[in-house]
Amino acid sequence: MIVSVIGLGLIGGSLALDLKQRGFASKIIGVDNNPMNAHTAKKINLVDEIQDLKSAISNSHLIVLAIPVDACVQILPDIMDQINHQIVIDLGSTKEQLIASITNHSKRKQYVAAHPMAGTEFSGPQAAQTGLFDGKCAIICNPEDSSKEAVNIIADMFHTLKMRCVYMDSEVHDRQTAYVSHLSHISAFALSLTVLHKEKADKHIFELASGGFDSTVRLAKSSAEMWTPIFQQNKKNVGKVLQKYIDTLQQFKDSIEKDDVDGLNNLINEANDISRVLDQKEKNEQGTVKESVKIRRA
Amino acid sequence: MIVSVIGLGLIGGSLALDLKQRGFASKIIGVDNNPMNAHTAKKINLVDEIQDLKSAISNSHLIVLAIPVDACVQILPDIMDQINHQIVIDLGSTKEQLIASITNHSKRKQYVAAHPMAGTEFSGPQAAQTGLFDGKCAIICNPEDSSKEAVNIIADMFHTLKMRCVYMDSEVHDRQTAYVSHLSHISAFALSLTVLHKEKADKHIFELASGGFDSTVRLAKSSAEMWTPIFQQNKKNVGKVLQKYIDTLQQFKDSIEKDDVDGLNNLINEANDISRVLDQKEKNEQGTVKESVKIRRA
Repeated sequence: MIVSVIGLGLIGGSLALDLKQRGFASKIIGVDNNPMNAHTAKKINLVDEIQDLKSAISNSHLIVLAIPVDACVQILPDIMDQINHQIVIDLGSTKEQLIASITNHSKRKQYVAAHPMAGTEFSGPQAAQTGLFDGKCAIICNPEDSSKEAVNIIADMFHTLKMRCVYMDSEVHDRQTAYVSHLSHISAFALSLTVLHKEKADKHIFELASGGFDSTVRLAKSSAEMWTPIFQQNKKNVGKVLQKYIDTLQQFKDSIEKDDVDGLNNLINEANDISRVLDQKEKNEQGTVKESVKIRRA
Repeated sequence: MIVSVIGLGLIGGSLALDLKQRGFASKIIGVDNNPMNAHTAKKINLVDEIQDLKSAISNSHLIVLAIPVDACVQILPDIMDQINHQIVIDLGSTKEQLIASITNHSKRKQYVAAHPMAGTEFSGPQAAQTGLFDGKCAIICNPEDSSKEAVNIIADMFHTLKMRCVYMDSEVHDRQTAYVSHLSHISAFALSLTVLHKEKADKHIFELASGGFDSTVRLAKSSAEMWTPIFQQNKKNVGKVLQKYIDTLQQFKDSIEKDDVDGLNNLINEANDISRVLDQKEKNEQGTVKESVKIRRA
């Protein structure tokens, strides 16, 4: 199968590498509106050749969009207008707005809305790596709106990437990712800003930072180009989740200021239950790919 | 030199291992008021022998306190009463209150207030590991209140642990650790609680969490036994820092809800400057131990 990858950054580049090396794709065509990225991607063999968007669409069987979510919303309807029998998939972090943009398109069934839950804080073609998706979870949204054939091909693609598929309503997806992905990025950005502001007065402050700080703030390296559009498109959910996070921080602040030892112990003991979740996740990722699960509208 | 380590958890156990293996200590005496911990520490060879506190004090040259900061404040004055020529050091995460507890003690000069900036989210003797401190920073507070001999011995000890020493006023220490250590723990605890609460309604929510979430929330495994007393002893600074963090999160929320794209881009671009700090830290930790630096009252 010939696969066109639109957007040759961390996600698109990593996917291209594994689909080719693992035999899912016979050829990878790359498209990137940044000529430097396109050049680099070809040079480091992420893709077999670079083409313009129009040629890439007509010369491939599967078109993968791996670009920021605002760019996705902008070009997906045009791409859908240009396809014949090709299948189109996007890998963006928000789904409702994008799906809404082509709900009534005559070729809607040839599009699959997906989101592989993998990444690093780095970006660009040089950040691409093999095995990025191994053992992680791939979301496929609203599969009933895509053809069975299209969903099967995409599920095969994710299995090639050693991912387990989770089928989910786009509304549930956008709500849940606000909690487990978008919030942790904002918490890291805000942590970074809080300490960087203090650095202006206390210039040696980072001398004292250890591995725990590094781990908590790591996601603050992530780019505005990718994240501003995600927060915008998911603002309803992100706003609500941020308010809950702020309220919880306020509870900590109140307990500390009131010397409420029991309250503070309870909050921390409850938070420790995250061990159960992280240990289970580790097992899942190390173990065999679980059966796919279906999560529908709550 | 015979070293007594009081508290055989992650920090005390790891220190004991390296001081013995690297020849700084000829013998390690362990003390722990939890008999299970004491038994385990002896069994896995963290220490040469277990003694009670009184014997350990009289049988050693150096006494290291590696217990929660509330326990430190409780027993340090008693220990100071019992020493002859021994040197006493504590490794706690807060310093002002502890130092105040023995300011006027006749043997004050035999005590050194220190804080090695290293750790993991795990606790107990089984969590001890060699090399935990390598390349990290060790704070020594108010060195002018300790004898030159005591400070030199402690600096040697930290060099044996391959740490670089930073000399600092206790007031500056407590303010700066509120930013680079205490805040990141609270941000992780609150992130954990926010998502765990949501899990009650959306039981599959953690299916979607990827490595970024894990990294940001990792510190939420840390124990209340250790952290509640730290937040209490440093409540003045922690309260201020938490307010700044909440204000920054509120800025994000406002920018998102008002569709202020430029504002959001500016916040994220500014937060990205953390790359400079993290990359520099990585270099320091990989490179040779830098010269010790002095940071005094701002």
